[in-house]
Amino acid sequence: MFKHGDPADDPKWGPPFLLYLGSAADDLAIKTARGLAYWRPEWCIGQYRNPDCRITLGLPDMKPAQAKAAGAETMVIGTANAGGVMGREIVADIITALDCRLNVIAGLHHKLRENADIVAAAKRNGRALFDAREWTRKIPVGTGRKRAGRRLLTVGTDCSVGKMYTTLALERSMRKRGLKADFRATGQTGIFIAGGGIPVDAVIADFISGAVELISPAREDGGWDLIEGQGSLFHPSYAGVSLGLLHGAQADALVLCHELTRQHMRGLPHYPLPDLTRCLEANLAAARLTNPDVKAVGVALNTSKVSEQEARTACREIGQRLGLPCEDPVTMGVESIVDNLLLCCGN
Amino acid sequence: MFKHGDPADDPKWGPPFLLYLGSAADDLAIKTARGLAYWRPEWCIGQYRNPDCRITLGLPDMKPAQAKAAGAETMVIGTANAGGVMGREIVADIITALDCRLNVIAGLHHKLRENADIVAAAKRNGRALFDAREWTRKIPVGTGRKRAGRRLLTVGTDCSVGKMYTTLALERSMRKRGLKADFRATGQTGIFIAGGGIPVDAVIADFISGAVELISPAREDGGWDLIEGQGSLFHPSYAGVSLGLLHGAQADALVLCHELTRQHMRGLPHYPLPDLTRCLEANLAAARLTNPDVKAVGVALNTSKVSEQEARTACREIGQRLGLPCEDPVTMGVESIVDNLLLCCGN
Repeated sequence: MFKHGDPADDPKWGPPFLLYLGSAADDLAIKTARGLAYWRPEWCIGQYRNPDCRITLGLPDMKPAQAKAAGAETMVIGTANAGGVMGREIVADIITALDCRLNVIAGLHHKLRENADIVAAAKRNGRALFDAREWTRKIPVGTGRKRAGRRLLTVGTDCSVGKMYTTLALERSMRKRGLKADFRATGQTGIFIAGGGIPVDAVIADFISGAVELISPAREDGGWDLIEGQGSLFHPSYAGVSLGLLHGAQADALVLCHELTRQHMRGLPHYPLPDLTRCLEANLAAARLTNPDVKAVGVALNTSKVSEQEARTACREIGQRLGLPCEDPVTMGVESIVDNLLLCCGN
Repeated sequence: MFKHGDPADDPKWGPPFLLYLGSAADDLAIKTARGLAYWRPEWCIGQYRNPDCRITLGLPDMKPAQAKAAGAETMVIGTANAGGVMGREIVADIITALDCRLNVIAGLHHKLRENADIVAAAKRNGRALFDAREWTRKIPVGTGRKRAGRRLLTVGTDCSVGKMYTTLALERSMRKRGLKADFRATGQTGIFIAGGGIPVDAVIADFISGAVELISPAREDGGWDLIEGQGSLFHPSYAGVSLGLLHGAQADALVLCHELTRQHMRGLPHYPLPDLTRCLEANLAAARLTNPDVKAVGVALNTSKVSEQEARTACREIGQRLGLPCEDPVTMGVESIVDNLLLCCGN
């Protein structure tokens, strides 16, 4: 089941995982670890926190040696010091883990492989290092050529509105129904969860759509590829990535993701969120270039910041306005979206 | 006037140039050299051809030693062996040039700096090597924040329809009128011509719009930045690059570029060209995200494959249909487009 980016990669990393929280100060800093613990609890046997860390995933606290004794294979670094740099403390903790014969995988801007001490420790212990935000292997240019199989892509009004959670919720629901469906990861947390994928925002610009074609190749088994979206066509920093995703996916179905209380585009107070209808139309128009039959099948609403009552009202209102099922994947599930997907695109 | 990507780069490359044609077999293979010879004839003192080369730029034939004696500073590699690889012959020619104390700059997929023999020859002669298709320096993420100055961006129905020629023709015309106008390069040939710029299709996907913000920063002198476009929103391989360019440019004015006889998207026989009106509308809609006041000011038609009569008819017909001045920048100039730019956006 664990398919890494390149079969030549040796040694391999894989679960069971020890999740490194370090000295993380808030929930945002442990986003990656939390995603893994939520979606793959069976793989996560412990958390490794420094004494000053005040947050928890509710997992048993373990140091690398204990985790190894308990069966852990890989330590996951999902957090960073302020500014994404790798401080002395985190480097020391990584080397300790390697010396306990754990692999180490990270989604940091600062790369494990760029630290000579870490590389040396991995080598002397025969352990794997993996930087999920890095992609140096060759990707072919996208062709736009029609390929077999069915694909769904999550798109968003903004970054960080719940595209990965939505895609994974769809996978879980479809598999429960006995359908073949596979999450295709395009970001660091998703890559840890899937055990493979390509960080599309980290590839060379000319190869964005080619990367998406590569992770969701032709399939003949009647199953679905569920592709994790990134960014937003309406985010002035990252829209190129989102457009390449739309073109590479050749999506049959789009699910629009939105965070209900978001006031402005992430990181850009001077940019308002796009209107939902306009956002969906723009995504459909762009997607039609490589799949003229693309359909919108649902709206996934992140309602984590409002009451249950407000959430239900918002889903009803938005669902009616867009003529699509609208749910919060985390608190309500995605059954009505999957129902509509099967209705629109067959099963 | 020569501003390189990074002031820390040392040693520097610059004109006068010896243009390396090697064993190039057709005009396409010397596209970069031809662009330099056409736009900067005063910088090009000779061409270096192997005995089997049957094409010419009409420049004096010179070997590196002769060129150096005649004042050349830098040899430009604008061609590649089949498949973009660097064969033994071209490597030997590059080393000869370095040993004659010429700098060497290239726009090949295969990088000069990845060949140990070339790197060693550059080092022992204290010469510069420059790979125009490579970008390893840090680029900030795009902000979309409004900046001072006026910018024009060329957009296209497809790749390789004349965006660079059009942008340079606009620069020439505006400068002749006494206006401040600067070509901003985003591709290899443009970078050689401008002496600087960023190859936007070679940057990491997350930084496309940031790269464009970097090459066309705020300016307060009342002048124009004329930004070389890349790709097309309608090319399924490269559209992400084009969208990042639109957002990063915050363009006040767009010029649509089109090749009259192009039958399908470059390299993709299964994709027809987009309708001109639809293409322009899509570009304007995308550009409005970062500059709601963007205007289309003209159409640049590459008519190189039809008669003069057909070219004039096509320009008239397309100009009327789109309600914009339409000219072939190479055979007719761009005066009516510049007139309209000044009318629409002030001067």
